[in-house]
Amino acid sequence: MNYREESLKKHAEWKGKIETVCRVPTDSREALSLAYTPGVAEPCMAIHADIEKSFTLTRRWNTVAVITDGTAILGLGDIGPEAGMPVMEGKCALFKAYGNVDAFPICLKTKDPDEIVKTIELISGSFGGINLEDISAPRCFEVETRLKKDLNIPVFHDDQHGTAIVMTAALINALKLADKRKEDIKVVINGAGAAGIAIAKFLLDFGVQEITMCDKFGIICAGDESLNEAHRAIAERTNLKHVKGTLADAMKGADVFIGVSAPKCVTREMVLSMAEKAIVFTCANPVPEISREDAIAAGAFIVGTGSSEFPNQINNVLVFPGLFRGALDARATTVNREMMIAAAHGIADCVKEDELSENYILPYAYDKRAHDCVANAVKNAAIKSGVCK
Amino acid sequence: MNYREESLKKHAEWKGKIETVCRVPTDSREALSLAYTPGVAEPCMAIHADIEKSFTLTRRWNTVAVITDGTAILGLGDIGPEAGMPVMEGKCALFKAYGNVDAFPICLKTKDPDEIVKTIELISGSFGGINLEDISAPRCFEVETRLKKDLNIPVFHDDQHGTAIVMTAALINALKLADKRKEDIKVVINGAGAAGIAIAKFLLDFGVQEITMCDKFGIICAGDESLNEAHRAIAERTNLKHVKGTLADAMKGADVFIGVSAPKCVTREMVLSMAEKAIVFTCANPVPEISREDAIAAGAFIVGTGSSEFPNQINNVLVFPGLFRGALDARATTVNREMMIAAAHGIADCVKEDELSENYILPYAYDKRAHDCVANAVKNAAIKSGVCK
Repeated sequence: MNYREESLKKHAEWKGKIETVCRVPTDSREALSLAYTPGVAEPCMAIHADIEKSFTLTRRWNTVAVITDGTAILGLGDIGPEAGMPVMEGKCALFKAYGNVDAFPICLKTKDPDEIVKTIELISGSFGGINLEDISAPRCFEVETRLKKDLNIPVFHDDQHGTAIVMTAALINALKLADKRKEDIKVVINGAGAAGIAIAKFLLDFGVQEITMCDKFGIICAGDESLNEAHRAIAERTNLKHVKGTLADAMKGADVFIGVSAPKCVTREMVLSMAEKAIVFTCANPVPEISREDAIAAGAFIVGTGSSEFPNQINNVLVFPGLFRGALDARATTVNREMMIAAAHGIADCVKEDELSENYILPYAYDKRAHDCVANAVKNAAIKSGVCK
Repeated sequence: MNYREESLKKHAEWKGKIETVCRVPTDSREALSLAYTPGVAEPCMAIHADIEKSFTLTRRWNTVAVITDGTAILGLGDIGPEAGMPVMEGKCALFKAYGNVDAFPICLKTKDPDEIVKTIELISGSFGGINLEDISAPRCFEVETRLKKDLNIPVFHDDQHGTAIVMTAALINALKLADKRKEDIKVVINGAGAAGIAIAKFLLDFGVQEITMCDKFGIICAGDESLNEAHRAIAERTNLKHVKGTLADAMKGADVFIGVSAPKCVTREMVLSMAEKAIVFTCANPVPEISREDAIAAGAFIVGTGSSEFPNQINNVLVFPGLFRGALDARATTVNREMMIAAAHGIADCVKEDELSENYILPYAYDKRAHDCVANAVKNAAIKSGVCK
């Protein structure tokens, strides 16, 4: 099927992938008096006396804003807020289908971090959580950091952390099959945008010790004067031996390659140079760093991609519905590292040991059990780490 | 029934009066590829090429933001954005039930007109219309005026125009029964806040020629140095004979009294002093300017109130669902005077001549036919007045 052509046709038929519906009776004078005036004055005053009651007397407890500025929509780049809406609506549809979260899409007409932060702060009292989406780097780092500091509801930039979590889940199960320990492996990450940097930070917190990051100029090394702030910070925590060189140099002897970069930048020779039982996650979209076929031909033990066409799709749809479900159910005031690591384990644990194979390291994105599993793991981690109201 | 107590109980049970649901299949790899990646890239690019397509390929065509700053919630005053939410959610529930409009509530954490306008402009690309709600005067005038100028979607401040429209609808039918012409009547409006001023302007456009406005200090008269900008502007168009005096003075010989002011400020004597077949709309909430019982005892021919407990409830729930339904269906770029006058006639026309009586001048708020009637009238007026895309 030509998905893009068919999708355009479907979108014209659907006229919207989400809908707001009414949950209360409205068909009599009495019904109106309870749901609206004069009765409604009482819940208003109850919340006025205690703002926390906005989580029990309105839909806030289950409502998440999916917010973008339209600057990094899919692989399409800066296409503007209105054009980003089909992706945001799709995301909201999945939030509901997989996490029973009421998500509402808002596309902002600004690229200025100050205006983005200010706008989200001003509307935040109407939501139980904020999912940031497709905001280009490095602005996304500043926006998320400031909002997490200012708001007492969960704030989550999916392109960073959703990707890091699902990548880590894939790694957990791949390492089981390869019979390697996270403490011993050498990981190469190619691509130092929002996703690549988030993956590196997350794997370090997770316990991976040797990571080398590359961008299009090769290995990123602390001390290089040309690095921007975000790159400088991550360079100080990776590539501890201060190796310089190309991506090909970095990949020699590596146990794991993680690509969140550009099409066709990895050759068969580069995969061939990796360690035994090499794990290759090649997630550039729509064209990967190296095709699954070529990676396997070059001896890769396990291959994961960003595409639903092949086994082992590394898809952050596995993360956000369950993560917010768990955070909302716990009335968490933030999303912390403990909750995110619990989410990664939650996803990995969905594949039972007797099901686990080179071609099945992750559950399918549309497997409802996986989302329930993530939600439970995140809820428990939130409670255990003491960030709940 | 004690509506307020019962309403609090119901709100705790409901846990939200609206809900966002998913309208598309999500239960297979193929479904995901159409509603989300990779297929979704195509509708994104179609909107990028032509922003107007956001009205056909996403839910924008049917989506209205209900926005408040929480400063004038019901008769409760400035109770803050979170506490305003039960009213906004209730409004959104009625938007859906009566107009099939997807409405989403947003309560802003600011009272600064610049910030309110800026925030709404930044989120406006995600909506097909903006319903402003419970923003206190005089800031509401500035906010609405600026947004109407800047945005090319309908912007409507319900507290002003919804009230003016339903009041005019009530007047149209009351005048039929009293056998008086709008050009001949003398109208007194008590209360010079957002609603009172909007009613005065609207009735002037509608064709009423003699209006006297009062506030708590008495008759408003052009030339009075103490008037604020909004009062000065309306004073120049009303009280053309430059009469000074009290509300009691103004009401002598008046055909119509419209109260959007304060409890118990009108006496039986004042109603008794009005012209024959006096029309008394006494809408202060929850306690009216004079009780229906007292007004009738003093000789009023027709009495309308803001309460659902009595006949002739003058309720702007009759306006907003149908008005936005019609505006959205016409893809109107604004809400103009023609559309609002059509809405007033649409409501009035819902009461057939053989049904019309002193105790039935308006349809019930929960009568779905009334909303359909308003929607049709508004849609036709939008097309006829040439404001549609």
